[in-house]
Formats: sequence, structure tokens, C-alpha cells
Amino acid sequence: MERYAIDVLLEKMTLDEKIGQLMQYAGAFYSEEANDTPVTGPAELPINQHAVKKSGSVLGVAGAKKTIGIQKEHLKSNRLGIPLLFMADVINGFRTIFPIPLALGSTWEPELVQQAQSVAAKEAASAGVHVCFAPMVDLVRDPRWGRVMESTGEDSFLNSRFAEATVKGFQGNDLRKEFDRVAACVKHFAAYGAAEAGRDYNTVDMSERELREQYLPAYKAALDAGSELVMTAFNTVDSVPATGNKPLMRGILREEFGFEGVLISDYGAVGELIPHGVAENEKEAAQKAITAGVDIEMMSLCYENDLKGLVETGEVSIDLVDEAVLRILQLKEKLGLFDDPYRGVSEGREEQTLFTAEHRELARKTAEKSTVLLKNNGVLPLKTKKIALIGPYGDNKDILGEWSIFGKQEEAVTLKEGLALHSEQIVYAAGAQMYERDQEHFQEAMVLAKSVDTVVLALGEGRDRSGEGRSRANITIEECQLELLRELKAIGKKVVVVLFNARPLDLTEVDQLADAILEAWHPGSEGGAAVANILFGSVVPSGKLSMSFPRTVGQLPLYYNSYSTGRPLPENSDERFFSRYIDVANTPLYSFGHGLSYASFQYENLTLDKTEIQRHESINASITITNTSHFDGEETVQLYIQDIVGEVVRPVKELKGFKKIIIEANESKTVSFTITEDMLRYHHADLSYTSDPGNFRVFIGTSSSNTEQAEFRLIK
Amino acid sequence: MERYAIDVLLEKMTLDEKIGQLMQYAGAFYSEEANDTPVTGPAELPINQHAVKKSGSVLGVAGAKKTIGIQKEHLKSNRLGIPLLFMADVINGFRTIFPIPLALGSTWEPELVQQAQSVAAKEAASAGVHVCFAPMVDLVRDPRWGRVMESTGEDSFLNSRFAEATVKGFQGNDLRKEFDRVAACVKHFAAYGAAEAGRDYNTVDMSERELREQYLPAYKAALDAGSELVMTAFNTVDSVPATGNKPLMRGILREEFGFEGVLISDYGAVGELIPHGVAENEKEAAQKAITAGVDIEMMSLCYENDLKGLVETGEVSIDLVDEAVLRILQLKEKLGLFDDPYRGVSEGREEQTLFTAEHRELARKTAEKSTVLLKNNGVLPLKTKKIALIGPYGDNKDILGEWSIFGKQEEAVTLKEGLALHSEQIVYAAGAQMYERDQEHFQEAMVLAKSVDTVVLALGEGRDRSGEGRSRANITIEECQLELLRELKAIGKKVVVVLFNARPLDLTEVDQLADAILEAWHPGSEGGAAVANILFGSVVPSGKLSMSFPRTVGQLPLYYNSYSTGRPLPENSDERFFSRYIDVANTPLYSFGHGLSYASFQYENLTLDKTEIQRHESINASITITNTSHFDGEETVQLYIQDIVGEVVRPVKELKGFKKIIIEANESKTVSFTITEDMLRYHHADLSYTSDPGNFRVFIGTSSSNTEQAEFRLIK
Repeated sequence: MERYAIDVLLEKMTLDEKIGQLMQYAGAFYSEEANDTPVTGPAELPINQHAVKKSGSVLGVAGAKKTIGIQKEHLKSNRLGIPLLFMADVINGFRTIFPIPLALGSTWEPELVQQAQSVAAKEAASAGVHVCFAPMVDLVRDPRWGRVMESTGEDSFLNSRFAEATVKGFQGNDLRKEFDRVAACVKHFAAYGAAEAGRDYNTVDMSERELREQYLPAYKAALDAGSELVMTAFNTVDSVPATGNKPLMRGILREEFGFEGVLISDYGAVGELIPHGVAENEKEAAQKAITAGVDIEMMSLCYENDLKGLVETGEVSIDLVDEAVLRILQLKEKLGLFDDPYRGVSEGREEQTLFTAEHRELARKTAEKSTVLLKNNGVLPLKTKKIALIGPYGDNKDILGEWSIFGKQEEAVTLKEGLALHSEQIVYAAGAQMYERDQEHFQEAMVLAKSVDTVVLALGEGRDRSGEGRSRANITIEECQLELLRELKAIGKKVVVVLFNARPLDLTEVDQLADAILEAWHPGSEGGAAVANILFGSVVPSGKLSMSFPRTVGQLPLYYNSYSTGRPLPENSDERFFSRYIDVANTPLYSFGHGLSYASFQYENLTLDKTEIQRHESINASITITNTSHFDGEETVQLYIQDIVGEVVRPVKELKGFKKIIIEANESKTVSFTITEDMLRYHHADLSYTSDPGNFRVFIGTSSSNTEQAEFRLIK
Repeated sequence: MERYAIDVLLEKMTLDEKIGQLMQYAGAFYSEEANDTPVTGPAELPINQHAVKKSGSVLGVAGAKKTIGIQKEHLKSNRLGIPLLFMADVINGFRTIFPIPLALGSTWEPELVQQAQSVAAKEAASAGVHVCFAPMVDLVRDPRWGRVMESTGEDSFLNSRFAEATVKGFQGNDLRKEFDRVAACVKHFAAYGAAEAGRDYNTVDMSERELREQYLPAYKAALDAGSELVMTAFNTVDSVPATGNKPLMRGILREEFGFEGVLISDYGAVGELIPHGVAENEKEAAQKAITAGVDIEMMSLCYENDLKGLVETGEVSIDLVDEAVLRILQLKEKLGLFDDPYRGVSEGREEQTLFTAEHRELARKTAEKSTVLLKNNGVLPLKTKKIALIGPYGDNKDILGEWSIFGKQEEAVTLKEGLALHSEQIVYAAGAQMYERDQEHFQEAMVLAKSVDTVVLALGEGRDRSGEGRSRANITIEECQLELLRELKAIGKKVVVVLFNARPLDLTEVDQLADAILEAWHPGSEGGAAVANILFGSVVPSGKLSMSFPRTVGQLPLYYNSYSTGRPLPENSDERFFSRYIDVANTPLYSFGHGLSYASFQYENLTLDKTEIQRHESINASITITNTSHFDGEETVQLYIQDIVGEVVRPVKELKGFKKIIIEANESKTVSFTITEDMLRYHHADLSYTSDPGNFRVFIGTSSSNTEQAEFRLIK
């Protein structure tokens, strides 16, 4: 259907039908069987079948049979034959589950994430899903927030690369032709990750400069990569909830960023303008949201109940409604739904597509690349096949992570199962439940441990402690789990802690006690296989943190690219009048970019080919990295830059590039980065985005806190 | 000396002499004896005697003999006979020490604080001090920050009242005539209290609306009360350090607020523009500071070393220098220094003025009013004279608080000394050191405890854990102190915990165990006497918190007047998709405005004389409070208002008035507040400060979390 045909269609529609297109309800309203919608807000809405029948899109239903059934039923009664859009939360895989996004962030491999997300798209599309609610690119600096799991981390540059990768992986080249692709929906616009005190849905407040400098770039990257949709954030931006924020949506998103796709509210967010205290009732909420440019209202009824009246009284122009309807129809057209409302979905195709060996293989590889070796005193890779596996995550299939709605836990490979592929000498005891002591099992585990030299201790936080609405004020490992570690060390065992969790935790005590720590996150369907490969050395770990691990919750928010202060703490100083805490270091326990390998990489000879450039020139910054070990390894070489003097204060360093390379044992490689003037720009006092002449520091290294450094000057 | 005479004086001055007026150095540069300056930054400056001799003001020296000596010596060599200004950190008393400002905040009695500060002024003035660096009115929401002790709390309205009180108490009616007064210096402009993650000197970032709505009002109140000076903040405001921030200082402070007095940098802050990364060198720092309007550079040398060159090359206009010098000369003139450079100071007058019985009496009264009864299960007031006093604060004279530079610890009344005035049956053992276990003393204390029913347990944090450069990532009571409490409860004693500390602490466990908790803060010279009066019931406690006490550090920042969210947690709900933590309540342990009495107050019949008003009308809101106890008591009745719907999100409630009244046993009183339109204004999307028609909630009660409520409507 061509553009003009959509215009013709629009002309035929009644106002009631138009408003229907703007509404999205959960699957349960369409079919009793379709009740797999994740409920993330008020699930009951007082609507009748008429409203459901004229609606434009469906939330959270997947499965060929269900989606075909609902679409068929819908088209029977829809006067103009406008097909439904099916949208769902496909975050890190559909049926084949990849590691949670925060783990994907640790790969520092956008290409790999693009592959993974194209698999997610293929599976979701085969199940009748048209739009997936990802990438979530909210910058996160506070691990108290339960949704840090859904972000790729604390750096806007790195997040931007993953944002692009997800959009490309989802959307491919042409949604109309490629029925194994889905439309992406970048979220949550904007700055949802900055919820104060890490408490979900809490106030967000920051300067416009901070918003533009740190928070907006990753959304912009997703849009530049072609994301068809954008989802509004629950929070305020400049004191106005995003869902009713015209300067944000019409000003920045539409006009400045040129976004022409569909803007959808988050779950219930239009209605939430009322408790937010910027709308007195549903009518005012509807008016604010449509005026801000929200095209689809998800799971509240403000448009449905009040938009008609607002248009009839002239309080809302019909043009606003038409514009929203047109965008939705265009999306349906782009997805090819007017030609084939089922996009070629069939139960047979679905069955052939889901959870294939190839997909599982990619899930395993992605989990391997996501795993971060935080500490290793030499115990890894394991030197013996005789291992005691202990801990509540030792033989636990609940490792798909929150948001793996369509995945099947029973298909997950546990760590015990993974280890069994390498050794028949694994003995296992849980030792404790996730959150509770279990004296009998504790004793059993200690008896087991006494029979071996080395223990793999699988600890973490349950899936039910992360995700939306799951902020934690304490970010420690449960006492009942720590007791296992303490006792195992007390009886003299080598202990490798493998962590299954969804946020940076306070690992201060774990770090003091464990011989090695492997951060496995919630690693997805093939998690246990991936971790076992690393433990036994079949795979050399290469993951690097994309979010700082604090020493204690009392340091939060904490992030590597903090701004220069007037009293920076000199290294190793314990003097008083510097910016510091008196009871803990300023530094994180594990820095952004940190991650060990079994190989050892030595960085030397950071060389700049020029130390002074004009704006149109570039610098080649190269460094030699030698693998001084007997392991072939993979290293993510990181480039940071600091603008030493700015018109406004500037970060102590900022990631500006990275390269992931394989270096064989005893091999040296030279890695080069090109530094250009556009990497030196920032938002000035007047918010202009330009660079200043002056001195800059270049840092290249293995993490944000372990770098070589050099200096250059930008001249006019 | 009249204004024209100052102009004539300015004309006679060389550029070098002018720049001298802008410089402030610590006392040690002037006299070997004058080394009582608190060093709060780099103490050594490479300057020669010429620079010292032409300087305009002295930091941190007090004492009649010293100040007379330095002034005399200075005038001998000063070509134009311009006297020195003496400035010092007199925060909560000079020699007679009052409770720390956060404790003063708990009095909710600006009149009392005005009296106390007039005593501080009188004592300081008698010792030759001309300017005191107070009030500190920085809004504080994060008790990790060590300087919360120096603020009056988390509410801009309450802070404003104390700001005015301190300025009036310091300055009186006419500094030229009243030689027992000093000039006030409001600090730290602006928003120093919002240091990120509670880490001193850290970045501050917020929207301009938040700055204007929450942070600026208390500075403005101090200026409106006539504060002669303003001190710059160490932090950034809109990404530019305050000390080099022209829009903040020239725009808001000078033009908008009409401030014509002296703007002084904080200690070393001009030089800190370099590590902040907004100035490449001292020259650029000098240029930025003088351009921003900083008149006096404290303890760095940018003006001294570079201002002359900047003026000579035309990079800085001589007008900027002249303007700064004029302001300083005017201040000297206002203080009467051109008539009497000693302001009548003599050793005799000083001796008669300091630490008089009258001053001590006021210190005791102020400490009584500052003390907050956080919990009481009936054990207080004490029913017996036979008491065991235990804890590191039991007989500790270090209760003057950080910043009590000129106070004498040996003059402080300890709790043991205070209790001895009431009873001869007090037995005492420290039981533990402040931060360390002490097994022998622990046992001794338990033996002692066994001989009594009731223990007064004096715990807290040392002075060395609060104040500038003393942020804490953990805000718990030391383990060695908690052990005392646990053991005393384990052996079945009634335990009254008296806390001596300088910030809200995590008292969750203390609250669970103790029978009563009395927050005494660092109460000053008469602290022990005041607390003993309350414990034995000679005085009924009346203090109310001016800062929330969190349940755990993981809730921070936490404050009562948070903004409405889209998903406010319903009371007693443990459902998931609301703004909450999964492991701790959203609420503080003790709310803003909380504070018990021995009396019991029952609030009823909140009545509004109108439920609808036009802008020019007012509402009379009245409530009846009955003292249902046998104690005469004093109650602070608090008025809060919520704007239910705004153009931008609005706080869940905001303090708009309070009245402290005495209600005798079994008496009822009716308290009234007048609600007017100006109390309903806020900063809109365009930052205009106006009110909106619509509905408002009125809350009147005994704390921010315990109120009666009513509603009214503002019509056009």
C-alpha cells in the first residue's frame, strides 16, 4: 500500500476509528488464551469489546497460533480491514535467551549483539511479533535501580554502539520484505535511568547540559540507526513527565532529531500524568499526551475516553490525531501488514525457527563473551577435573534473567550441566537456598568440599530482585550465601566464585575472600555451558564491565566519567580537605572497562604521530600490546580522552573508542586509533556543541583505571 | 568616613594597593602568635611581606590582643591607613558554644537562634572579629555529606527563617554604631549542599528550576535580611564552578537579587578553578573570578600574581577592580573601621564579654530546645535517681562540635556533670571507646548496669567524623557502641540512648532496641546540663527534626518534600510496580518535623474558613490541639501545602508555616494560619514564579508525616 493509499484510508476513517488506532491493550483483552502479557502496571481496564475491536495494536502477545487467531478475528470485524500491530517485550532474546543487556554491554562487541538481536527478531517475527520494545539505552549510574539489567551501562558512547547494533539486528534492511525482522522501539525517552536514589519511577532532575551531554546521545544513535518507534519514559524531564512533555517530544525528538516514527507511551504512562500531578483528570492527560506527540497510549484509557470530546470541542486539533494515526498506519504499511497481515507467520515456520542449534550456539558464544573475570589469583582456569560445585546457582535453571518472558527455563543449561560436559568428577550441593540458611544443606556442602581442593561457588541474586519495580537499597550478596564462602575459606579451600546477578553488587567481602570471581550475570539459555567453558579454559574470558562496581552502596551514584572537582583527591592521600569519603575510597571496587583474561597483556609505547593539530587534522594514536602469557587471548583496547580545560567542567576521562582484538600467546600487536576534532566536542555554556583549542589527554589501556597516557594540543 | 571620602581614597590608591585590598590571608602570615586559623585547604602560600602588608583582610584570627597587635602593626606601614578586616568562622558561638547549626534547626525557634547569634556576635566582636562566616544556609538532603552539621536542614522555608535570624543576630541595626555586632557572610552561594553522592566538593548538577525552587530561597532570605557578605561555593552551578560563574554571581546574585555587598571566595576557591578545569592557569582563574564579581580572594594568589598584568594589558577592566575595592572599603566604613580601626576592642572588654553566666544560660536553653526526643516508650522522664551512665559520650567534653574553633572544651559540661546536678546516685563507665572495643571497660559497664534498672547510654559519632572534608559512605553507629546497647538489652535493662552526633544516622537497630532515644547532637558548652534537665524532666523536650533520618544509607538522598511520581506507593502496599525499594520502606525512620514531647498532643478539627478563594483573598486554617497528658509541653505546629496539579510536578507537601506554642497539661489551644496566594507560587515551565488556579491540600500536624488534612480551591 502506497503513501497516497494510506491518506485515502485515513479519509475514510471516523474519529472513533482513528482514536482506536491510538490504543494499545494487553493480549488478554483479545483472547483468553493470550494472557502471556507481562503485567507491569494496572492490568484491568474498564473497556468494552467495541473499544478492543477498533484498537490499533496489541501488547505482549506472541506465538503463531495466538497472533494469527487474534488478527483473523480482528479483521473479521474491522470495517476498513486495518490489521493489528503486535508488540512485545523482547529484550535479550525471544525463545533462545541471550544474556541480559547489562551482560551484553560487557561484550564490547556490537557486531555480536547485532547478530544476537537478529536471532531474537527472527524468532519473535516467526511468532507473529511486529515490534520489540528494545533497545533500552537509558544511561545507568546507580545499581540500586532494578532496571540497570536492561541497559548496556554507564557510558553514552558504548551505549550508542549497542543501540545501533540492536536496531540493525532487529530491523535489517527492509521490514516490508524481510519478514524475519521486527521494528525496534528505543526506550525510554528520556533519562529514565537517572531515577533519584535509584528508586524506580522516582523523580529525575538534571541540567539540560547533562541531559544532552550524557543521556541523549544513545537515543539519538538508535534513531540514526533507524529505530521505527520510541517509547516514553515514566519519569520527569525538566519537571514534566516525559509522556506529557512537549518540549522534549515535539522539540527535541521530532524537530531536532527528526524522528518521524511512532511514539508510544510506556505502560499506563498517559494515565499516570494524573498521579504525577500535571493533569487533573484523564481528559487533561489525553490533551497533554497528544499535544506532546504521543501516538499510542499503552494500557490506560485517556485517549479512548476523552480524545473524541477534546476534538469535538476544538481543544485538540484533529490534525494532531490524524498525524498520529498516519504514523501508525505508515508503520503497519512499512511492516507489510496491509499486504500480509500475518507477515508470513505459520506454526510450522515458528517451530522451525525457535531455539535452533544455531541460535543456541550463538547464545552460548554471547554468554562467553559477556562473562567478566573480575579477579583471578591463578586458580583459573581450573587445574583439576575434581571440583565441588556449591551454591544456590549451582544447578539452577532460573538464569534467563527478568524480561525473558517467552524463554523457557526448562531449556536453560545450568552450571552443573555445563560442567558435566567437561568432567565426570563434579560433586554438587546447593549449601543454601537463595535467601535462606539451610543448616542441613550447609553441612552437606562442607562435607563435599572437604573432599576436593577447589570449589566452584555459584552465588548471586535471584531474578526476582531485578527488573522493573525492583530497586534495592542494599546491594550486597545475601548473608546465607556469604556464609558459604566464609566457611569454605575457613576450611582452606580454593574458591572460585561464579556470580549470577543482574546489577553491580557490593562485592567487597567476596573480593577479599575468593580466589577468583567470574561475573556470569544472568547469562541466558546456554549460561551454564558458557561459564563451564571458561572455568575449564576452553574459552579465555574477555568480557569488560560496562558499569562500575562500587565498594559500598554509600558511594552511589558512582561512574568513571565524573567531572573534575576543585579538590581532586591525590592518589593514596588520606588528607582531609579533598573530595573524598573518610571511610571508603573514592574508587569503585571494579572499574568501568575492567575485566581480566587468562592471558596477560602489557601495554607500552603509546605514541601520537602529532602533538598539535588543527581542526581539520587528525592524530594517529598507537600502542603496542604484548601478550606475555601462554594463552591466546582477546583484549578490548580502550581509548579515553580528557579535555583538560573547558568553558564548563569536563569529565576526568571519556570513552572515545575501543577495539577488541585477538592476541596470540607471546605475540605483540599494535593498535591504532584516529583522533579527530569531532571527538573533542562538548556542550558549552550556551549548549552549543563545539570543541575548544587547548590541551587534551589521551589514555589508552585495558580499563578506565589502567591506562597509558599522552597529551596533545588542538590549535585554532 | 562618608561615601565621597571612599571615592577619594580609591583615587589615591595604586593598582598594587587596590589589588592588596582584594586579598585575604590567614593569621599566621601576620603574626606568629596568630596561628589559630583553621586550615581548610592549602595552608602555605609563597608570598612576601609586601603582599601581606598591603592586604585588605585577615582570615581566622581572634582575640583582642592579637587583633589589636596585627591592626596596629598594619596601620604603621599602610600608606593610606586603610585598616584590616578580621574575618573568622564563628558558626555556632564564639567562646560560649551553642549547639551545631543542624541542632539549631531542630529548635524551630528563629527568635532563639537570633539571640544565640547575637551572643556569638558580641563575643566575637569583643575579640576583634568583624565578619563571621555564617549563616550557612545550604539545603541538605544527604547526611553522607559532613557539612550537614553546619546547615539548618532540608527545607528552604525553615532554612530561610534561620538565615534571617542569624543575619539579624549578627548585624543588629547599625554596624557602625553597635560595636558588639559583626557583619554576616551568607554561604555558600550556591547549592553546595547538593554535592553528588554526599561527597564533599563533588559535582553539583540540577535543573535551573530546582535551583530556584529549592536551593536559592534561603540565600535570598539572608540577603533580604541584610547580610553584608556572600561567600562562593566550592561546587559547580550549571557546570561552572561558582567562584568563576558570571551568570550566577553577576546575573542572579547582583542583578536579580540586588546584592551590593562583598563577595568573598571560599578558601582557595579562586585557585581551584584550575583543578576544576575551567582555567588553564592562575591568570585565567583571576580573570574568571573578577569577571564573575568575586571581590576578595581567600587563600590563593591569582589576583595577587596576575590581576595587575590583566589590567595593564586591558584583559580586565580597571572598573572591575575599582568596583571590588569600593565594596570592601564601604564594608570597612560601614563597620566604623575608618573611625576606630579597633572597634572599641580591649582585653578588658573581651574578658568581661566572653563566656558569661548569661551566655552560658542561653547556651543551655538553646541546647534544651535543640534536643529531639526521637522515641520514648515511657521510660522518660527518668523515674529513678539511680542510673548507670554508660558510653563514650557519658563523660566527654568533646561536645562542642566541629567549627567551635574559639570554644574551650574544658569549659564544656559533660552529660555526667549534668546528671550530677540532679542525682548523687549516678554510676558511670565508658564501656567502649568511640571507635574501638575495650573488653575491660565493657565488662565494667555491664557489672555497673546490673546494679540498676535503667541505663543512660551516651553514643554517637566523634567530632572528627563531621564537618568539611568529612563525608561518610556509611552512616551507622560504630559496632563497638552498638554492642553496648545489644548487651544491655540482653541483660534486660531499660536503656535510654542519648546521641551525640552531627548528621542523621542510620538508627534502625538503635530504634529496635532502645527504650528511648534522645538526639542531643553536638550540643555545645552546656550540652550535658541541658540533656540532664530533659532526662530528669525539669525540661520537657520540644525539638523537631529539620532533616529526615533515613533507615539506611541506600535510601539517600531522602527528603520529605519529594516530587509526586506517576506511581506513588500506596500505604502498606508491597506490590511491585510502584516507586519503591523491595528491601526497605520508602519512608524515613524519623521524618522531617518529627520530635516527641513528654506531653501528648491531640490534633483535631482542622477547619478552613473558606474552601474557595480568589487571588486577593486569604484562608484562615485553624486546628485544635489538646494536651492530653499531665506534662505542660511545647509543640511546633506545622503547616504544609500541596499543589495537587501543577504545570510541572510539585512536591507531595511543602512547609509553609509553623508556630511553636506552649500548651499546659489538659489544656486545649486553637492555632491558626493564614493561607495566602503567595504561598502557592512556584517556578513554572518558563521559570516564572506564579500560582495556578486549582485544588490544594492543606496539612497541619505534629510532623511532616503526621497531619490532619483539608482541601481548598484557588479560583481565578
